[in-house]
Amino acid sequence: MDSKQFREVGKQMIDYIADYHDNIRQRSVKHNVSPGYLLPLLPDSAPEDPERWEDIFKDIEKVIMPGVMHWRSPRFHGYFAVGGSYPSILGDMLGDAIGCIGFSWASGPACTELEMVTTDWLGKMMGLPEHFLHSHSGLGGGVIQTTASETVLLCVLAARNRMVARMKETDPDMNHHSVISRFVCYSSDQANSSVHRSGLLADVRMRKLQSDDNFSLRGETLRKAIEEDKAKGLIPFFICATLGTTGCCAFDSIKEIGPLCEKEGIWLHIDAAYAGSAFVCPEYREHLEGVEYAETFSTNPHKWMLCNYDLSVMWIKNREYLVDAFNVDPFYLKHQNEGRVPDFRHWQIPLGRRFRALKLWFVLRCYGVKGIQQYIRTHVSLAEELEALLVKDGRFEMHVPATMALVCFRLKGTNKLSEMLHDHIMARGDIYIIPDYARAQGKGVYFIRVAMVSEYMTSDDIEVTFRAIQRSADCVQERYADLLQTEKNGVKDDYMPLINNDACPADFKK
Amino acid sequence: MDSKQFREVGKQMIDYIADYHDNIRQRSVKHNVSPGYLLPLLPDSAPEDPERWEDIFKDIEKVIMPGVMHWRSPRFHGYFAVGGSYPSILGDMLGDAIGCIGFSWASGPACTELEMVTTDWLGKMMGLPEHFLHSHSGLGGGVIQTTASETVLLCVLAARNRMVARMKETDPDMNHHSVISRFVCYSSDQANSSVHRSGLLADVRMRKLQSDDNFSLRGETLRKAIEEDKAKGLIPFFICATLGTTGCCAFDSIKEIGPLCEKEGIWLHIDAAYAGSAFVCPEYREHLEGVEYAETFSTNPHKWMLCNYDLSVMWIKNREYLVDAFNVDPFYLKHQNEGRVPDFRHWQIPLGRRFRALKLWFVLRCYGVKGIQQYIRTHVSLAEELEALLVKDGRFEMHVPATMALVCFRLKGTNKLSEMLHDHIMARGDIYIIPDYARAQGKGVYFIRVAMVSEYMTSDDIEVTFRAIQRSADCVQERYADLLQTEKNGVKDDYMPLINNDACPADFKK
Repeated sequence: MDSKQFREVGKQMIDYIADYHDNIRQRSVKHNVSPGYLLPLLPDSAPEDPERWEDIFKDIEKVIMPGVMHWRSPRFHGYFAVGGSYPSILGDMLGDAIGCIGFSWASGPACTELEMVTTDWLGKMMGLPEHFLHSHSGLGGGVIQTTASETVLLCVLAARNRMVARMKETDPDMNHHSVISRFVCYSSDQANSSVHRSGLLADVRMRKLQSDDNFSLRGETLRKAIEEDKAKGLIPFFICATLGTTGCCAFDSIKEIGPLCEKEGIWLHIDAAYAGSAFVCPEYREHLEGVEYAETFSTNPHKWMLCNYDLSVMWIKNREYLVDAFNVDPFYLKHQNEGRVPDFRHWQIPLGRRFRALKLWFVLRCYGVKGIQQYIRTHVSLAEELEALLVKDGRFEMHVPATMALVCFRLKGTNKLSEMLHDHIMARGDIYIIPDYARAQGKGVYFIRVAMVSEYMTSDDIEVTFRAIQRSADCVQERYADLLQTEKNGVKDDYMPLINNDACPADFKK
Repeated sequence: MDSKQFREVGKQMIDYIADYHDNIRQRSVKHNVSPGYLLPLLPDSAPEDPERWEDIFKDIEKVIMPGVMHWRSPRFHGYFAVGGSYPSILGDMLGDAIGCIGFSWASGPACTELEMVTTDWLGKMMGLPEHFLHSHSGLGGGVIQTTASETVLLCVLAARNRMVARMKETDPDMNHHSVISRFVCYSSDQANSSVHRSGLLADVRMRKLQSDDNFSLRGETLRKAIEEDKAKGLIPFFICATLGTTGCCAFDSIKEIGPLCEKEGIWLHIDAAYAGSAFVCPEYREHLEGVEYAETFSTNPHKWMLCNYDLSVMWIKNREYLVDAFNVDPFYLKHQNEGRVPDFRHWQIPLGRRFRALKLWFVLRCYGVKGIQQYIRTHVSLAEELEALLVKDGRFEMHVPATMALVCFRLKGTNKLSEMLHDHIMARGDIYIIPDYARAQGKGVYFIRVAMVSEYMTSDDIEVTFRAIQRSADCVQERYADLLQTEKNGVKDDYMPLINNDACPADFKK
């Protein structure tokens, strides 16, 4: 494809993208395919000769779109908000066109320096402490990572090395592997699965601490765990506290956890992957109290700040813990300005890196701080609208009050009833939602999460979502009454949940 | 920005990208900025109010471009080929527009299945064993990773767990941390820095084995190392062999290494990040002999196969070693089709993932196998052209014969002479090259690498590159004669190399 053709088909693609977004409500939010749907649609080998773009372009609708889950649709309420916006797409286009690999300052000065500027901008917008900024005189700064999950792993590894180094100061001859076998790190039982996976990857003991009735990890719980573990001869070295958990957007109490970490020399990492964006609005910053104790803090503008995946920002108070811990510097990457500017390859797991700051820059400038605040507040207010509708209906109960832009509810009654509701909604396919499961007051509770995801969402869309829930609740209640009757008559329940129950805790099935 | 404006400014961006590529030879390949150049060009906070796109767009030339290293330019010969092409940009645009996060099959069936199809296509194109394909009846398959460096880390961790599990079979009560302290893995001394860094991150002993006179790691060297290490009570568990090393594109002998790995139960990972693309041309497949012994194999279409970063493909023979080792499955990611299709989050370090297969699909279809072969062969032949010109000149010697699309040469004589040549070329800035350093026959050798990088490169560009080298050689030889004279007269040499010599081995400075 030469530049002449690219000018033509690139503009066709721009229109396709705009049309896709303009008309996204007309598509069924959920794909309707079974595993393996795509294979028969494509040949089993790459073509020998170049194909015509017209034929490839046609296959987008024919081959790809039937298997797409439309995350951009206002009918999509799964997981959490997913970033993406027109300015962000433009940033990725430009980044691809430049195509530099910014592993060192020298390999792309603009790539490195725009990242320093935009992560500083973002840190200031969110009210983070100055020691996290590149412009501050200290050793801190922000960096764009692929994901919050990669950041957690990196922080666990850096914290592990910091603790080993500290212990070597007092005992230089120790076998560090046998010491590591006594290391323990913590997170709440509500932390994202990737936090626990980091423990597996890093091969360190990761202890899940029980959250309180509001699903928040409290200082007292941590204090007791540290005490118990130290009594057993273990060495606490890291904790991941979450601001805005995946399940129901709970907030760990970092103002209680922070001072304990300081006292015990534990690396406090704050994972604010989702809710971090909300701190752009001052009214949500109460949750940030205690952030000054954190060694590292991360949030995902690719979640709730209109940037396309991947764009996760990590700030560190003292870069030396990262840079020095895993520094392997080959001759061919050396350059004359080393040490004067960050070489961001030392701040991350992969060696290579894209020019991702462009999309953050375009987004922050196109929306402005006020535009981002408005976007966040609109999503929060839409969540409150949905909560009000559900409460007013009378049949539903809130698992927790709507928090940020997430509504967690259930049908009053048994878990099975709410599970049937979820499955019915998903089978109808008008909207996309996911369930979650939590232990509350000693009981397993099944609930349904409705996240505000799309930038295009309005009150009218909330109305559509609510009606879809209501309609399914009507059917399910009717069917559930029959089911109870059937069971009373000793006939086996033929109701099969759509998701695999084998993986659920036993008390979920009650 | 609404869709109306996006249609307009998106098309403007398409033209900007095409113009940038069409006229890239007119830009100075190397940025001409010093660290901190960008800071005074931007305000120190994000704007409160939205800015006009016209103003943001103007800043691309004003703020960004002065600090860009133009990797797409035919004057750029640094590092290795960097992928990128118009079809690939279109793929990223579409991926951004869809914006699904493909952590599970359910969250984006097309994202998962197109990845299965295109990695199968690519594996077949490269002549990889069938057990690496999803379409094969076994447990193998390909997956798109961010980088080859991330892949190596993942493989080290999986191999570590496999070895621990094996040892637990015979001794269930062992303390696995104390066993890991005896683990050792290997790579050649020519392996990419990220391989050694993986050892640091995974906290396992990574032993660099000496390559032979052709910079290739041989079976006999590995055999001796295993023997020595086992005699010391160590446990070899992993080796990363490289096909196409970063320094001078050497090939480890996997046909010799493979059988040893099989015998000793060592995980063989093959890193063909750069040279893997060449296996699309059957004439280069001799280097693949022994590939059937590999547990994992990776190559970067984002290097030498026209795909934009990031797109690194890893194939694994038995996915269970990955999926089972680090599987933490939260309820909210469960879906009804689990187990029937890959959930690629289990195959990688991060949780999230973009729809990257689109760009591979567009590239393979737009170019066809023949087009990719032609691209590879053109680059190889341009490297040979440059080699012929250098040899004909008489003043230069090849560090190694031109291999794939990489030319490694030096000025005959001392290292200092070649270093001066490099620095002179870089100071002139007509072309961009990087040096490397190797031990050969007991001596430290400084050489200059000239990689064929840009898709747009022609014989005329090679002529330009050669003349730039020649011109600088003229100046340097003259200056060097003066320098020798000055030193003879006892006057201190005022020549300061541009790169920081502190980091170089001492014998490099001779």
